[in-house]
Amino acid sequence: MKKTDILVIGGSATGLVAAMTAKSDNPHKNVTVIRKEEKVMIPCGIPYIYGTTETSDNNILPDGGLIKLGVDIVVDEATKIDTKIKQCETKSGEIFSYEKLILGTGSIPAVPKWLDGTELDNVFTIPKEKVYLDKLQKKLEGLNKIVVVGAGFIGVETSDELNKIGKEVTLIELLPHILGATFDDEFASDAQDQLISRGVTVRSNCGIKSITGKDKVEAVTFVDGSSLEADAVILSLGYIPNTDLAKNMGLDLNEFGFIKADQYRRTSITDVFAAGDCAEKTDFATGRLSKIMLASTACTEARIAALSLYELNTYSSFKGTVGIYSTCIGDTAYGVAGLIEKVANKEGFNIITGSFTGINRHPGKIEDSHKETVKLIVSAKSGVILGGEVLGGKCVGQLINTIGLAIQNHMTVHDLIMTQIGTQPLLTASPAGFPLIKAAEIVAKELRK
Amino acid sequence: MKKTDILVIGGSATGLVAAMTAKSDNPHKNVTVIRKEEKVMIPCGIPYIYGTTETSDNNILPDGGLIKLGVDIVVDEATKIDTKIKQCETKSGEIFSYEKLILGTGSIPAVPKWLDGTELDNVFTIPKEKVYLDKLQKKLEGLNKIVVVGAGFIGVETSDELNKIGKEVTLIELLPHILGATFDDEFASDAQDQLISRGVTVRSNCGIKSITGKDKVEAVTFVDGSSLEADAVILSLGYIPNTDLAKNMGLDLNEFGFIKADQYRRTSITDVFAAGDCAEKTDFATGRLSKIMLASTACTEARIAALSLYELNTYSSFKGTVGIYSTCIGDTAYGVAGLIEKVANKEGFNIITGSFTGINRHPGKIEDSHKETVKLIVSAKSGVILGGEVLGGKCVGQLINTIGLAIQNHMTVHDLIMTQIGTQPLLTASPAGFPLIKAAEIVAKELRK
Repeated sequence: MKKTDILVIGGSATGLVAAMTAKSDNPHKNVTVIRKEEKVMIPCGIPYIYGTTETSDNNILPDGGLIKLGVDIVVDEATKIDTKIKQCETKSGEIFSYEKLILGTGSIPAVPKWLDGTELDNVFTIPKEKVYLDKLQKKLEGLNKIVVVGAGFIGVETSDELNKIGKEVTLIELLPHILGATFDDEFASDAQDQLISRGVTVRSNCGIKSITGKDKVEAVTFVDGSSLEADAVILSLGYIPNTDLAKNMGLDLNEFGFIKADQYRRTSITDVFAAGDCAEKTDFATGRLSKIMLASTACTEARIAALSLYELNTYSSFKGTVGIYSTCIGDTAYGVAGLIEKVANKEGFNIITGSFTGINRHPGKIEDSHKETVKLIVSAKSGVILGGEVLGGKCVGQLINTIGLAIQNHMTVHDLIMTQIGTQPLLTASPAGFPLIKAAEIVAKELRK
Repeated sequence: MKKTDILVIGGSATGLVAAMTAKSDNPHKNVTVIRKEEKVMIPCGIPYIYGTTETSDNNILPDGGLIKLGVDIVVDEATKIDTKIKQCETKSGEIFSYEKLILGTGSIPAVPKWLDGTELDNVFTIPKEKVYLDKLQKKLEGLNKIVVVGAGFIGVETSDELNKIGKEVTLIELLPHILGATFDDEFASDAQDQLISRGVTVRSNCGIKSITGKDKVEAVTFVDGSSLEADAVILSLGYIPNTDLAKNMGLDLNEFGFIKADQYRRTSITDVFAAGDCAEKTDFATGRLSKIMLASTACTEARIAALSLYELNTYSSFKGTVGIYSTCIGDTAYGVAGLIEKVANKEGFNIITGSFTGINRHPGKIEDSHKETVKLIVSAKSGVILGGEVLGGKCVGQLINTIGLAIQNHMTVHDLIMTQIGTQPLLTASPAGFPLIKAAEIVAKELRK
């Protein structure tokens, strides 16, 4: 039996950050990470291995940080955990004792039971396992007509990348637009236009009925009865928490199958923590259970869990998941934080929205300038910012974090108008026409009426 | 006599934003802007007219917003204001009556009295007037050896641009590094290395004594007795508030020569407001008088003044100037917000700093990736973030605004660690190695000791 103090199960973003934070915060404790794979994928980078980065070998989550801190890495699979005697058994027969346990077992691709034909050859999902992804990449080499089902971020980014390397890609989505669950229509339709202009065929408003073929996939059949030839089908229909281990060790799961965990990421059993995709999420805006999985939020949760192992020091300021997403299609980037208009309405918020389109450089004649649109979703009575959407150049990836911070600080549009920002001709929009501030002004004016 | 309701003096960033906000907030009032120039320069864009944008005609602050709202633009000069009868006389002999007056008279280049030779031909400053700047550009065509004196943002950006079009540029700075008043040494020296690598000769730690020549400039003499040949000298030694008009109308000025103004930008005389470079600044961190002039802060002040003309609605959340700056040298951008380490120490803050260097894409093998360093300056007892510095790719211009927002919300490093951010391979650093969060972690760990 091997003795460790802090045992982390899972080696992706959650496991990495949890182990590093735990060791850094408790240098005299032994910290061990058990993970299934020799080499771990950067999760968000997976779609890009098909084109931009060319191979999964260019998308490895580095072990340097763990090694430098002195965290033990064990490539093995935790098969059974006895929380009474605080021991973990592995597939290879090893037993690890622990004081504190952090589960970061992540998520696995959802494969809907109602969908016939998913067992056929050349039907794939996008899990986070290097071995599977390498096999998939190899297999795709000989295949041309690719149908991607589900136009969330992974589906869109994978379609764009496969198109980039010359595949004939059709992206299927049930909603009216790609990314339609995450963005309001004006942003989602812009993203769809961009993707189409790059050569991907998009069939939105389109329900899939079955995947057909003899042994291997030959076609996809739609709800309307039509069908489409396919050499391969990639299912990107979301992810479900990977909780078999948790279930077997007796942890409480919630109605969506996530491991129940409080604001400090403590589970129903003492000294067992859960963070990341496998752990319960509540929504920042409503406190209701949420299903949003994000590597960035996983890292935040991992830090919180690791800093809460032996003592708590202050009320947690983590009040649930704020979905903050961004992506890039061609030279246009899209970002969203918090509630979009349609979700805010559905939740019963009385809202006012304001949108402003400007240019992300000043003067606009600077060579690499790009249109920049900001939309704010704001509580109509209090002026509190509930959400924001942005489209523009690559710095949208940072701009959306400014909005995310405003949301997490419960800022109002009035606060935002009084806020000082930095601007520079080659780097940002002008201070007089800064889309974020202008959008806040538009809403504030409505509020004063 | 012409009758207006809201009279704005000055047509640069402050005047533009004040007039637009005032008209938008009071659509039934007449709003008039009096400005000296037919065409107004985008102030921060001025250095770039020498290279990047080629001509001042590509750097015009657009009038479209004013015209669309129905603001009257008068090209003239306000020469005398009688605040008792509320009338403004202009150079052309026109008289305007007003209810509310906003002064946005801006700033003019500082020319030190102790410096001999500033009256010589081919000694220039960088004011905001198009006519002057066009003449300067024309004159520089025939001149090669350019000495720029003062390595603040304008001096650095102007040097870089003149070097870009083939001039032999020497930049002179009294401090050990360029941008040394605004950045801590490690950032300032990096910026200096970048500028030198692009071909600009930098002489830092170097005091200028006089400018010499017969009629026109021939050389610059230094404090150490040495001298340097020069065809032209450009003085970029800061700006002083332009307050002759304010002084003559009886407004109180502060000890640095700025128009005294409260948090709502109200001056010592009822119904007269002042905003932007001409108006009093207090420091966000200390409440002391400040001399920081920024177009972005000017726009914030202009909004506040314009929204406070007829009534106040809430306590102002504008608590003084937070200096938020950014610039770009080659492909490296630099940003700073709030207090840097050396200023915080000088002010008597007990601080801890934390720096982290990562990469602004993930994986780092993404083609346009760039090193990204974040340094946080944090109160050692409370953990409150006092300032931050960043170096990286172009998105530093937005990243520094996230830090600026954290400062203005009095966030602690603990808050920042619990904060959710959005990340994306093509757009940002990885969530596990996000330099802003990692720098906060480093400080938080120190604080727990």
